[in-house]
Amino acid sequence: MKIENKFPGKDVSDEDIKTKFPLVAKKFPEHKSKFEISNVEFGGSKVPVFAGPNMIESKELIEDIALNVKNAGAHFLRGGAFKPLTFPYRSEKYNETREKGVEWISEASKKVGIPIITEVMEEKYINLIAENVDILQIGSRNMQNFPFLTACAKTGKPIMLKRHYGASLRDWLGAAEYILYEGNEKVILCERGVSVPHTHKSTSRFLIDLQVVPAAQEITHLPVVVDPSHATFWRPWVKPMALASIAAGADGVMIEVHPDPSNAAVDPLQPIDFQEFNDLMKLMHKICIPLGREIL
Amino acid sequence: MKIENKFPGKDVSDEDIKTKFPLVAKKFPEHKSKFEISNVEFGGSKVPVFAGPNMIESKELIEDIALNVKNAGAHFLRGGAFKPLTFPYRSEKYNETREKGVEWISEASKKVGIPIITEVMEEKYINLIAENVDILQIGSRNMQNFPFLTACAKTGKPIMLKRHYGASLRDWLGAAEYILYEGNEKVILCERGVSVPHTHKSTSRFLIDLQVVPAAQEITHLPVVVDPSHATFWRPWVKPMALASIAAGADGVMIEVHPDPSNAAVDPLQPIDFQEFNDLMKLMHKICIPLGREIL
Amino acid sequence: MKIENKFPGKDVSDEDIKTKFPLVAKKFPEHKSKFEISNVEFGGSKVPVFAGPNMIESKELIEDIALNVKNAGAHFLRGGAFKPLTFPYRSEKYNETREKGVEWISEASKKVGIPIITEVMEEKYINLIAENVDILQIGSRNMQNFPFLTACAKTGKPIMLKRHYGASLRDWLGAAEYILYEGNEKVILCERGVSVPHTHKSTSRFLIDLQVVPAAQEITHLPVVVDPSHATFWRPWVKPMALASIAAGADGVMIEVHPDPSNAAVDPLQPIDFQEFNDLMKLMHKICIPLGREIL
Amino acid sequence: MKIENKFPGKDVSDEDIKTKFPLVAKKFPEHKSKFEISNVEFGGSKVPVFAGPNMIESKELIEDIALNVKNAGAHFLRGGAFKPLTFPYRSEKYNETREKGVEWISEASKKVGIPIITEVMEEKYINLIAENVDILQIGSRNMQNFPFLTACAKTGKPIMLKRHYGASLRDWLGAAEYILYEGNEKVILCERGVSVPHTHKSTSRFLIDLQVVPAAQEITHLPVVVDPSHATFWRPWVKPMALASIAAGADGVMIEVHPDPSNAAVDPLQPIDFQEFNDLMKLMHKICIPLGREIL
Repeated sequence: MKIENKFPGKDVSDEDIKTKFPLVAKKFPEHKSKFEISNVEFGGSKVPVFAGPNMIESKELIEDIALNVKNAGAHFLRGGAFKPLTFPYRSEKYNETREKGVEWISEASKKVGIPIITEVMEEKYINLIAENVDILQIGSRNMQNFPFLTACAKTGKPIMLKRHYGASLRDWLGAAEYILYEGNEKVILCERGVSVPHTHKSTSRFLIDLQVVPAAQEITHLPVVVDPSHATFWRPWVKPMALASIAAGADGVMIEVHPDPSNAAVDPLQPIDFQEFNDLMKLMHKICIPLGREIL
Repeated sequence: MKIENKFPGKDVSDEDIKTKFPLVAKKFPEHKSKFEISNVEFGGSKVPVFAGPNMIESKELIEDIALNVKNAGAHFLRGGAFKPLTFPYRSEKYNETREKGVEWISEASKKVGIPIITEVMEEKYINLIAENVDILQIGSRNMQNFPFLTACAKTGKPIMLKRHYGASLRDWLGAAEYILYEGNEKVILCERGVSVPHTHKSTSRFLIDLQVVPAAQEITHLPVVVDPSHATFWRPWVKPMALASIAAGADGVMIEVHPDPSNAAVDPLQPIDFQEFNDLMKLMHKICIPLGREIL
Repeated sequence: MKIENKFPGKDVSDEDIKTKFPLVAKKFPEHKSKFEISNVEFGGSKVPVFAGPNMIESKELIEDIALNVKNAGAHFLRGGAFKPLTFPYRSEKYNETREKGVEWISEASKKVGIPIITEVMEEKYINLIAENVDILQIGSRNMQNFPFLTACAKTGKPIMLKRHYGASLRDWLGAAEYILYEGNEKVILCERGVSVPHTHKSTSRFLIDLQVVPAAQEITHLPVVVDPSHATFWRPWVKPMALASIAAGADGVMIEVHPDPSNAAVDPLQPIDFQEFNDLMKLMHKICIPLGREIL
Repeated sequence: MKIENKFPGKDVSDEDIKTKFPLVAKKFPEHKSKFEISNVEFGGSKVPVFAGPNMIESKELIEDIALNVKNAGAHFLRGGAFKPLTFPYRSEKYNETREKGVEWISEASKKVGIPIITEVMEEKYINLIAENVDILQIGSRNMQNFPFLTACAKTGKPIMLKRHYGASLRDWLGAAEYILYEGNEKVILCERGVSVPHTHKSTSRFLIDLQVVPAAQEITHLPVVVDPSHATFWRPWVKPMALASIAAGADGVMIEVHPDPSNAAVDPLQPIDFQEFNDLMKLMHKICIPLGREIL
């Protein structure tokens, strides 16, 4: 019998830190990764904000949003070109915005002067996206798609790794280790809501897990970002949860912004509009100050 | 067949608001209960803080803590005299602090000049406790003990109703309705962590649910307080989660404080010490300001 | 620091078995409680079946059901007189069937010759119910209402302790220990569904946890019964889950039966009718045989 | 505003059945897919059993197991060559059994005369595996790796799709639709445990969800298999949960078998040995009979 060391993967042990994710784990209590992406510093006093629509609906829309979120102080423009769908039937809208979406967001980036992040979903598009964007986003459904993590890591591009909605902290850190293992050190973790027995609306599936912010920061030197838009799936809760993310010590925030939220092509319940985003940026910045951080 | 209107109690419907908890539900969007307890206002710009030990270990200890938390700005002293235990075997320490515990915390309250809250667990002690404290706390395990809710409500004393760790928002509001139904309007809701598939430490059972703060406030006019100490069960996470509670819009915070945390008689992993509490109060107050609220 | 022995209460340790619930725990691997209630043996090869309506709607209804479930081979008639409600507003139907409900089910029991089980919810009715029924049922919401457990235990009546939908196995066994601690040894555990992140219907809140049957039986000598009606909340799933309960090794099954399910006064989605119950009893019995057990 | 039709993906609606997974959904209540794989019928009265080790440790081991499970009546030999690992650090044991593992299990299959199933994890190995095995297994972590599902589907090989431990029934059926959409109709669903707030051992992460068997069968015509070994992660619970799977109506069962369980190279807590498997096969068969099904 050699079962003594078996454990279920629910918790992180000292053994894990040494042998399972030594690259992800802190070397000393104050250890914190600091790196720059397109001149924005991560892991320091600055709290980068990623803002934009769920889907890059059109060239005009993404440029309009790029301009507005940049003016409000956002550091990165986000937008989805390739989106994972739970079912194989895509609306035409989805199909037309795939390769074109990458082109459109890339043009908006250059025109407005704001770096970009977009999700990469298929191995065959990794190069196309890596050439056009500043950060590759790996979606929650791909969090444990290990060959894909390795392939993305090998591009050398900075990577944001979203937590799967059913993943433990240990699963998440193990997935990040796959990326660091390839020598790619610009890795950002992103919490986006977990499955729980009780959510609070019939429209919601997830609950934001802010406790994971200090829990992850206790173990890893990587920056931990929070996405309250996907987690809450409800526009009025984005503001309080974004503020709470900052107060919990998040190293960045991702916010869905759309000029006309209720007419967004996907997930119209969750984006906030330009005015709300502008106000939120100012308020998040004010919350940052007593914590020794800043956004604007 | 009359099954059309059946639903599972996971979500709150408009029908619920009208028929299941009409007293708890808001009458208009800005509806918010305002009331005073021992000269502390609830439901206004003030964010009351409840602080103290898990267990009233001795007369000296509770007086020492009363003095220190009051000096740091806490509005209420908390402390447990009667504690629910998962198993019937109590240490002697527990038994000696039952009736005496109520006496000790009541004396500390008078001596130091700070109002008190303590948990009431059994019907036979309701009167003893109601005569000696300012707020009756109903623990999560009793949240749906309906005859007990009614008996507590009838004392006319203000009541803090902790959410059960497995309860939906709808369950929680239904329980609060039982109290309001008896004409007792000074009801405070308190979130203290929910059971989830993944916590982040082998020592923790719960995850703090901050999303329930805006979710509850969307429906009810009652103040919503958060207890990050019980939810996190881990001293280093109390500070970030207390700050996040404030930022999420909580109407109060309950913090476990002990002069020598690692030697606390129960749950020594979660209290913070006097210095940490003092610093936290100042920081929470600073976070309050841009939100139009205040603690100190 | 004395934190080494702290653990979260998620799992059962050897220490728990010795110190937290020594009376509930097995003394040796094959240890199994055997006792009789109204001439029905528990803990042996017989698998007792509890059947009846959710609510005792009328004298006629309960007698009709008593006769039919007895003829089908059920060992106990179940029926609720006092029912916990998530909200304080009861229909008139509920109120009229409280004291009267106990009277009606007691009369049905005598007339038809079948022992009965009903839920006791309030301390003031414990004696009334204890005098009239064969088994006291403690509902899931009262599972950790410790003074109430003690008061029920002191009647000396057999007790069925339903598991709270958010309770761990350890919580459940700890609650059972409170009853055994009073010298009352006829305790039956009953699984009735747990809260999980994903149920499979918009009408359902719980998922049946059959894994808890062998898990509980590994630790405790008490019989473990399963209630698939409340767990599934869906008539077509009651049959497969009842059969699965038997196959998983359950020491009894509780089934909701109503002559006209879709017109049941409460929870009309879950009862099965007389014909379905009759067929199910035969099928459960056949499943029992290769397992060395029997129902009929 | 066009938000009326938005829903959270927790439950399956009639709209889903028509538009999201029309190929997966039943066309009429008794609709059930029937197909043969290597002369074993799925979707009929036969309940196919898949048995074998977690990992193909050596040529000798897999042949020994192949012979023994075939003699006991198993219909398919299972064994993992390529295994997903939560962390990037593999033992040498793992590396040596990758390509070679496929070769070894393929040889064992021919020698003993039993068809095989193995997990495919990377796009680059799909063809190698498809040429050598009878069924491609897609692991839970890849359940929503949509490009990978499509690539596997295009081989035309039968596919077993394991449910992700955090996936809703709707997510699972949506993933299956991706496979059917490519014209590949031999799809088997496999439940292998879900993440829940409370498991029953410190070594376990998942709880078997048997309620999903009737729930899935209510909607889809695809066969639903259960894997109690991975779900329970505990050898003594495999037998009761395998029996319960059969009784719940599962269309197949997957069992981990190893000649010396406690010395298995991975997950030594969960396999059963040859004698236990032999006994279990006979008992499962006996449970099948009253249900109108058969194994042997």
